Amino acid sequence: MSNSALIAQISDYMNTQVPFQHMLGLEVTNFDATQSEVRFRWKDELVGNAPKRILHGGVTATALDTAGGIVVLASVIERLGENTPTDEVIARMSKCGTIDLRVDYLRPGRGEEFICTATIIRSGNKVAVARMEMHNENGELIAFGTGTYIVG
Amino acid sequence: MSNSALIAQISDYMNTQVPFQHMLGLEVTNFDATQSEVRFRWKDELVGNAPKRILHGGVTATALDTAGGIVVLASVIERLGENTPTDEVIARMSKCGTIDLRVDYLRPGRGEEFICTATIIRSGNKVAVARMEMHNENGELIAFGTGTYIVG
Amino acid sequence: MSNSALIAQISDYMNTQVPFQHMLGLEVTNFDATQSEVRFRWKDELVGNAPKRILHGGVTATALDTAGGIVVLASVIERLGENTPTDEVIARMSKCGTIDLRVDYLRPGRGEEFICTATIIRSGNKVAVARMEMHNENGELIAFGTGTYIVG
Amino acid sequence: MSNSALIAQISDYMNTQVPFQHMLGLEVTNFDATQSEVRFRWKDELVGNAPKRILHGGVTATALDTAGGIVVLASVIERLGENTPTDEVIARMSKCGTIDLRVDYLRPGRGEEFICTATIIRSGNKVAVARMEMHNENGELIAFGTGTYIVG
Repeated sequence: MSNSALIAQISDYMNTQVPFQHMLGLEVTNFDATQSEVRFRWKDELVGNAPKRILHGGVTATALDTAGGIVVLASVIERLGENTPTDEVIARMSKCGTIDLRVDYLRPGRGEEFICTATIIRSGNKVAVARMEMHNENGELIAFGTGTYIVG
Repeated sequence: MSNSALIAQISDYMNTQVPFQHMLGLEVTNFDATQSEVRFRWKDELVGNAPKRILHGGVTATALDTAGGIVVLASVIERLGENTPTDEVIARMSKCGTIDLRVDYLRPGRGEEFICTATIIRSGNKVAVARMEMHNENGELIAFGTGTYIVG
Repeated sequence: MSNSALIAQISDYMNTQVPFQHMLGLEVTNFDATQSEVRFRWKDELVGNAPKRILHGGVTATALDTAGGIVVLASVIERLGENTPTDEVIARMSKCGTIDLRVDYLRPGRGEEFICTATIIRSGNKVAVARMEMHNENGELIAFGTGTYIVG
Repeated sequence: MSNSALIAQISDYMNTQVPFQHMLGLEVTNFDATQSEVRFRWKDELVGNAPKRILHGGVTATALDTAGGIVVLASVIERLGENTPTDEVIARMSKCGTIDLRVDYLRPGRGEEFICTATIIRSGNKVAVARMEMHNENGELIAFGTGTYIVG
């Protein structure tokens, strides 16, 4: 299977088979080995500050970690190369995980739609680092994130 | 209203009126001006890694941020003093928020119940810092957190 | 005194009167209320890994924190406005300080000259956040930083 | 060579052969595979805030990163086992490095002597995580740190 087909398959998996992402309504809308995009729409269940109607910081953290994690997965797939058997790819993916995550909350989480983007800033064979941003539909920057991931 | 009555009221509010915490099943089980405890039980909806049945990292981040946030709130209430009118307390609380959060994921999020504890390590009139830990029911340390909060 | 004159004065102060920055050879080469630049040259005293001749991570942390701190100072000065008496500016500056700092080490610290740049990503009247990068003279990205500063 | 002899040798190396630690006056005073201690004395050259005579935040970051790095090295040595040839130990150590570092500045850096302690909180064969604290001679907690290190 080509890498692009694999990535499409993973995207589909992410959008249907990860319970917590499904609960929040996170949708992987785009990703390759250097960047990714995850979107979700406002839902009242995602509120943390009820009087002010602001997203819970945990929602933002979840969305940023998801965007960072999938760009890291794609970079792992790319490093393995086109001819790697699918089960080897999956075995490698199951070893990946977040080591640490930092979120900087810059503006209150308000809007109708939220767009998280991630880019790889370090891609090694043991550890990868991604930087993430979350904007709302008006282009306002709501949060920054930095994630360190184990990949091997 | 005495501080302890206020804290009981806030605890009740947190357990019933914060939609995202309710969605996850987070329950504030204890808190005062120096430490707090938040608990939740395993639910299949909280999974991030389906084949391995591990909590989504965003669940852990949410629970740690919640534990840190409430101990910070209690320290703010304590600093205001016993005779502060309730509406002034609430006005001050609504100005509080997370500035940044770091989560260190130490072990896979597995267990039947998860217990987050937070302690205040810096308590100023503008900024407070809390450290958090999440264990499962067997006492295994799953994650550490550090949160910086604006309080004034 | 105009803000630009004040900033020139602060830059001069930083380059001559801060002992630890002088010890390392850090030079503030440019800054205003939105971005700053700090440079330093390779010196054998700055090595952390002697066999591999790589900068100590603490040197990188120092340079990034310095770049972040000065862009934050400039944003404070700008918020105070042109007509603020110098002693009030200085009183306010002396209350500024780093709350927390994250450094992501991306590549070994090698090169002849190192250039740190910082930009403000959150500018409030209590807290400011800056993001920083350190490149060497070949444009290689060596480290990222994020700093949260108290400003009021 | 036994692990304890190796650790003594590394301690000696750290105290004499790492230029930047020597410049600051950092001394490794104790370490094994689970915890470490690094001390240094006040010197005017280490000042960042001259009017208030406070340590530069970069000094604190350097001392915390050093304490974290050496406890991680000791845990790597312990995992290799007693019979590992010294050159293999050294080869492995040269691959270790800081991935990311977070410092929380809690109180102004004032005192005559500063004591940094580090403990391992995650010890894997690719990545290790340490938590650090810096106190002054009066037992005042000045800063917390968290470091993620590559070890393999």
